[in-house]
Amino acid sequence: MAKLAAVVDVFDLLDHRCQRLEVESIAPMVGRVLAEAVTSTVNVPAFARSAMDGYAVRAGDTATVGELRIVGQSRPGRSFTGVVGSREAVSITTGAAIPEGADAIVMIEHTETREGSVVVKEPVAIGRHIIRIGEDVAAGCVVLPAWRALRPQDVGLLAAIGVRQIRVVRQPQVSILATGSELLPPGSTPTGSQIVDSNSPMLSALVGRDGGVVAAVRYVADNLNEMRIAIAEAASASDMLLVTGGSSVGSEDHAAAAVVSLGELPVHGIAIRPAKPSGVGFLPQPVFLLPGNPIACLCAYDLFASRGIRRLGGRAWELPYRRALLPLAEAFHSLRGRVDHARVKVVDEQVQVIAVGGASSLSSAVAADGFVIVAASRERINAGEMVEVWFYD
Amino acid sequence: MAKLAAVVDVFDLLDHRCQRLEVESIAPMVGRVLAEAVTSTVNVPAFARSAMDGYAVRAGDTATVGELRIVGQSRPGRSFTGVVGSREAVSITTGAAIPEGADAIVMIEHTETREGSVVVKEPVAIGRHIIRIGEDVAAGCVVLPAWRALRPQDVGLLAAIGVRQIRVVRQPQVSILATGSELLPPGSTPTGSQIVDSNSPMLSALVGRDGGVVAAVRYVADNLNEMRIAIAEAASASDMLLVTGGSSVGSEDHAAAAVVSLGELPVHGIAIRPAKPSGVGFLPQPVFLLPGNPIACLCAYDLFASRGIRRLGGRAWELPYRRALLPLAEAFHSLRGRVDHARVKVVDEQVQVIAVGGASSLSSAVAADGFVIVAASRERINAGEMVEVWFYD
Repeated sequence: MAKLAAVVDVFDLLDHRCQRLEVESIAPMVGRVLAEAVTSTVNVPAFARSAMDGYAVRAGDTATVGELRIVGQSRPGRSFTGVVGSREAVSITTGAAIPEGADAIVMIEHTETREGSVVVKEPVAIGRHIIRIGEDVAAGCVVLPAWRALRPQDVGLLAAIGVRQIRVVRQPQVSILATGSELLPPGSTPTGSQIVDSNSPMLSALVGRDGGVVAAVRYVADNLNEMRIAIAEAASASDMLLVTGGSSVGSEDHAAAAVVSLGELPVHGIAIRPAKPSGVGFLPQPVFLLPGNPIACLCAYDLFASRGIRRLGGRAWELPYRRALLPLAEAFHSLRGRVDHARVKVVDEQVQVIAVGGASSLSSAVAADGFVIVAASRERINAGEMVEVWFYD
Repeated sequence: MAKLAAVVDVFDLLDHRCQRLEVESIAPMVGRVLAEAVTSTVNVPAFARSAMDGYAVRAGDTATVGELRIVGQSRPGRSFTGVVGSREAVSITTGAAIPEGADAIVMIEHTETREGSVVVKEPVAIGRHIIRIGEDVAAGCVVLPAWRALRPQDVGLLAAIGVRQIRVVRQPQVSILATGSELLPPGSTPTGSQIVDSNSPMLSALVGRDGGVVAAVRYVADNLNEMRIAIAEAASASDMLLVTGGSSVGSEDHAAAAVVSLGELPVHGIAIRPAKPSGVGFLPQPVFLLPGNPIACLCAYDLFASRGIRRLGGRAWELPYRRALLPLAEAFHSLRGRVDHARVKVVDEQVQVIAVGGASSLSSAVAADGFVIVAASRERINAGEMVEVWFYD
């Protein structure tokens, strides 16, 4: 960890090396990323239908007030099968098919119904209140672009145009290796100097948020050989690995050596507080060495691993956090040459920094409303200066 | 539907009548809503530990440069069980327990290791680089407030403090009834004047987004008796019902009559375009009559049903859409006395209205970046005026 990598250089590396996964076919599902544009093969609506309750008529018959003979009715799913002739009308409800011969709808409010006939009180123009074939979607039109993460309304539209299978980017399978002989799985009761692993439940939730699937969570002791075997095994079944702990250069930090022995580790040490002892390697699958300290782990995940997963999955690389520009409540001192990830609270529309270092303090991220990234070039941000807050909620 | 309800009055009704569901116990899970504050019963860390790789020493021994005898090592999960005496040191790595007798850590960078001893080159103060018991979380402290929707880091912290079960608000069970004799389930091939249901796949995704669970999707014909039976059955197994179609006052619109016969329907018709033929009733479970037209259905869901589900589930009622104030590209004419839900695109940081009415055009919501709500009091919004955009992504 002789020379720390700049945060922007790590971003460049990830954008270059984390390529979209291959394509698979699935039934339409919200949140999945389209691998190709979707073109409709059908018209919506497939038949001309009424936008109103009323009467289907020939517009020419309504030029003068007059009485039209009611010859039938058209209801959604139960059309009138005859033809509307001159001075005839068919009772119709919203969504029902326009019967042959009719070319306009008179709203029920503009009629007076009598025994077997209807008096039209206002003339209508040809096409009035008729939803034309293909008016919503025309056959042959592109309805959804490639790389779209499907929204609820997109799934609705795909159903409407009869699409049963879509081509999407495969979801990244992510393995989590929690290293450290002191670690116990969540739910365990620690004794002595044991601690309960808080990183893998947190990371599992984050992987899901970013469109990945947690393939496995494994615990690995602080031992180079065990770590090598565990990383190699996980790599064979995953598109990406997250290794927590053992990421620094201490005598118990074997993660870096294990990755180097199995592939390459172009980044080891990043100029960011509190996630300095982070690494990025390739086996060739991307492997992220995340600090064991939970808040540093969260910071390194959000800035680097999240970007990697989102790129593998074909998503926009940006963190899915709402952002806002707000003034800083009090001056903040940073360190030139290192990016600061500062947890903040927003009180009375002002940004209060609650923690910057304190690498082990997950409670600061729990108490925070969000965080601010302070560029490496800044040494001091003044009170009142506008900063961009990334909100956790 | 003689008198249309004002949108704000519908909001008031929902806030008054949609009360939080009861509480249940589950294992911690991201996204669930805490029904009570969580207090830690343990200290984190539970033992004093080192924040650095180096040597655990007595701070007093480092006042002058000198050589300390190395008497052992402390590693994460494998503590030194002896006592550090005067002029003694224990090799220690980050996260390992501070051995008895030691009161400070000398960073490895400030030492020179010799055969069996270490030379300390800089004096340290008592407590240096020691993370105290309870420094992250003190036993007895509230770590998470009630009504918090759990974030990834919250789930991590709950693991760290050994919480196996949490008390959360039960998730609303929502039944969807798609009415209309013309409707076919998604994946079907329509003929004649049949259409494929696009509302229930869209609504299923939206219910999940708002923290609800889809209990059932059923198709019901345009028939008052069948609709009464279907609504009564669904009510017995759900916390909320969404009924699409048949919500207006036409001859085939039986949803309102069915709800009135089973409970009450205080709202039928809302002063909003394009979701006017919407209704809100209580059986006593909330039941939302949503227009069959997909875009009107989406609008009515987002403004009314979403708020109901979020309130039942104990969530903030606000739509989970990112918002931004942006200038309108061209003047927009609205209708006084009615709220307009306008789908918009944002091009060059300007808001372009792409659709307001066009009730059946789901494609407008697919093409839109988001929407703008125009207050009932406004008739015209000028070009350049700032409007609040709710973004779909």
